[in-house]
Amino acid sequence: MSEIRAGIVVTGTEVLTGRIVDRNGPWLSEQLAGLGVDVAHILVVGDRPDDLEAALRFMAGEGMDLIVTSGGLGPTADDLTGEVVARFAERKLILDEEMEEKIATILRNFARRFNFDEEAVREANRKQAMVPEGSTPLDPVGTAPGLVVPAGESVVVVLPGPHRELQPMWPAALASEPVRELLERASPLHGYTLRMFGIPESEIAKSLREIEAEGIALPEVEITTCLRRGEIEIDVRYREAATATAEAVRAALVGRHPRHLFSLDGETIDSQVAGLLAGHRLALAESCSGGLLAARITDLPGASAYMAGGVVSYSNEAKADLLGVDPELIEGKGAVSAEVAEAMAIGALERFGADIAVSITGIAGPDGGSEEKPVGYVCFHARLAGGATIAREHVIPGGRADIRERSALVGMHLLRILLSGAEAPL
Amino acid sequence: MSEIRAGIVVTGTEVLTGRIVDRNGPWLSEQLAGLGVDVAHILVVGDRPDDLEAALRFMAGEGMDLIVTSGGLGPTADDLTGEVVARFAERKLILDEEMEEKIATILRNFARRFNFDEEAVREANRKQAMVPEGSTPLDPVGTAPGLVVPAGESVVVVLPGPHRELQPMWPAALASEPVRELLERASPLHGYTLRMFGIPESEIAKSLREIEAEGIALPEVEITTCLRRGEIEIDVRYREAATATAEAVRAALVGRHPRHLFSLDGETIDSQVAGLLAGHRLALAESCSGGLLAARITDLPGASAYMAGGVVSYSNEAKADLLGVDPELIEGKGAVSAEVAEAMAIGALERFGADIAVSITGIAGPDGGSEEKPVGYVCFHARLAGGATIAREHVIPGGRADIRERSALVGMHLLRILLSGAEAPL
Repeated sequence: MSEIRAGIVVTGTEVLTGRIVDRNGPWLSEQLAGLGVDVAHILVVGDRPDDLEAALRFMAGEGMDLIVTSGGLGPTADDLTGEVVARFAERKLILDEEMEEKIATILRNFARRFNFDEEAVREANRKQAMVPEGSTPLDPVGTAPGLVVPAGESVVVVLPGPHRELQPMWPAALASEPVRELLERASPLHGYTLRMFGIPESEIAKSLREIEAEGIALPEVEITTCLRRGEIEIDVRYREAATATAEAVRAALVGRHPRHLFSLDGETIDSQVAGLLAGHRLALAESCSGGLLAARITDLPGASAYMAGGVVSYSNEAKADLLGVDPELIEGKGAVSAEVAEAMAIGALERFGADIAVSITGIAGPDGGSEEKPVGYVCFHARLAGGATIAREHVIPGGRADIRERSALVGMHLLRILLSGAEAPL
Repeated sequence: MSEIRAGIVVTGTEVLTGRIVDRNGPWLSEQLAGLGVDVAHILVVGDRPDDLEAALRFMAGEGMDLIVTSGGLGPTADDLTGEVVARFAERKLILDEEMEEKIATILRNFARRFNFDEEAVREANRKQAMVPEGSTPLDPVGTAPGLVVPAGESVVVVLPGPHRELQPMWPAALASEPVRELLERASPLHGYTLRMFGIPESEIAKSLREIEAEGIALPEVEITTCLRRGEIEIDVRYREAATATAEAVRAALVGRHPRHLFSLDGETIDSQVAGLLAGHRLALAESCSGGLLAARITDLPGASAYMAGGVVSYSNEAKADLLGVDPELIEGKGAVSAEVAEAMAIGALERFGADIAVSITGIAGPDGGSEEKPVGYVCFHARLAGGATIAREHVIPGGRADIRERSALVGMHLLRILLSGAEAPL
């Protein structure tokens, strides 16, 4: 659909060998897609200059208008991206004195704080200030400057490897003359994201088939459905001309799945729950999820306004001593039971002086399951002080990590349902 | 170093667009490295046949002996890997009747369970049983068979996209005749992993320079140093002939960094702490880390043997009511102070009837910092009942997520140090 094609080259032996997870490739891909650029390839190579050069030639050979590289801009000997890109673009490396001075200032501050070797610092400085002739240097965020290098029919954007340096440098890359000229030819892509919970992916596939059969021109829009951390994310991308179709798709999905569709604008469950919790005081009582729900709630800044606290009541004694659950109830019904879940929530409300509480108790495995209560059996209880309650029992499939994470996710959705008065799809 | 080079081609628009994280590329890369195969490129492409074919040609052109693809083997129209690989290998697609029957059996079971459309199932069946002439089909784990396809100078291994299908199919791919012949020419790679905590990466670089200057032939081994979740991981890979050098490197690093080097065999801090906690009863008191330490401890199966529980005391009231911290102490010293951290640990020991406790209280930001106690200021206290204690104060750099995660990590290391009697490097 797009006129502008892009390829991304991620360098770094530690990414190639799978020792660290690349965040730059997917992030750049998303950014470019949002600008209407068609990303065709992401290529990961190690720190060998020949492999990097082969990657650049491949991208150019495949007609990529834009090639974005990440990594290999550091001061050490195996950081060779600048050199390789210069050779690829058939441009001489020259010293950029202004850049040399900028880096020197940054490094002097580092050197002072960390007691670096002055001589090594000077060398690194010089190396990082060498830029291909006719390229546009991008100011460093860490110590490595980026580059925008015209190379034949392509433009190469050279960015540093650390994600926290690459990300803030991106706007400067977009603002550079050669990239701006390219992007003017791209027609921007619009899009929205829907999120659903508690429904299998196959149901969405079925709905989409029905929607198409009813006459909505699905091929005009690009729909990606994926299961992401226990929720279904439906991503719809389209060009200006297909706006009406995209809106019809949204309306049709809303009409078909009102209970399961909890986010029409891409807002995450975490952000929704944070909003709903304003003015409340939350307490948590977690057993099998072991603190994951508390960690998730407190992940967002400002959580202290509504988060009173939580108890990870991993042992029976903790359930009794810290949450006031009757040991005889635990003995009689089992630590994993609807009754104990309820008592945990009531205890959490009381002990923390909270007005809303969620409890989770279950069998995360691999051991501890029985025929009656298999691994994955989890009881939930959400409760407003003096008000509504929601209780649930699920058998969650998967391994220990799946069961724990999914338990925390169900806890989030119970909070949403209880606080928003939504109908529960669970 | 190796004679066998490999490239990995990951297909799937949802990976290319960054909507799902690719696990196959890194996993295959690690597997191949362990077999002594030199992985040069990982290339991600979407579901367009031209882009996939270009990827295969690039890999062959770069002299890859082995090309492994993942994805695009499903029953739908955009699953085209088999067809594209056949064309690339210049082999006709023929119907494998034995495979057709195998898939039919699997699908009949699915169809019965999920009420699929019988007609659609038969079509999918036929499509997935078409294999390039002269190739070795690999039995399906889900419903998609894999393939080993000789293609000129290269061998192409075609695997399904879902990681839980790809992984179990891998041994069959390795056992196939063409791959076995290739691997016989590879000389296996040995390796070990060291882990350090509390030391900057630059110190390791310095040590390695010194080690080389002392006459150890570093170029004989491949050393990758990376910062991973707050720890330094040093990965050393080598061929048989360089065993003595690799051992000399290990000994030299152990000699130089005895306090910071906590793992000589790649064992993680989580696993070490789990071992050290055997026979103990652990209680946690977390403020800024919000349950992350509890979640990390309970992540490992069997944690219920030593984990009594934890309190996420996010509010001052929770610190007082659930951990017995004197409100006047909080008032006088501040909720984030060494004194309150100590009182939290003592309270956790008592309330949970535990014999070891760790507390964390800090300012995760972005708000709440002051000149005296900036964002990132975190107090820790680890305590054995009636015994040793370790107290620490750190100013942790980075954003909210970094500060929280690093706090939990410091908590893990305090447990290790307290329980093992190691010297603290912090």
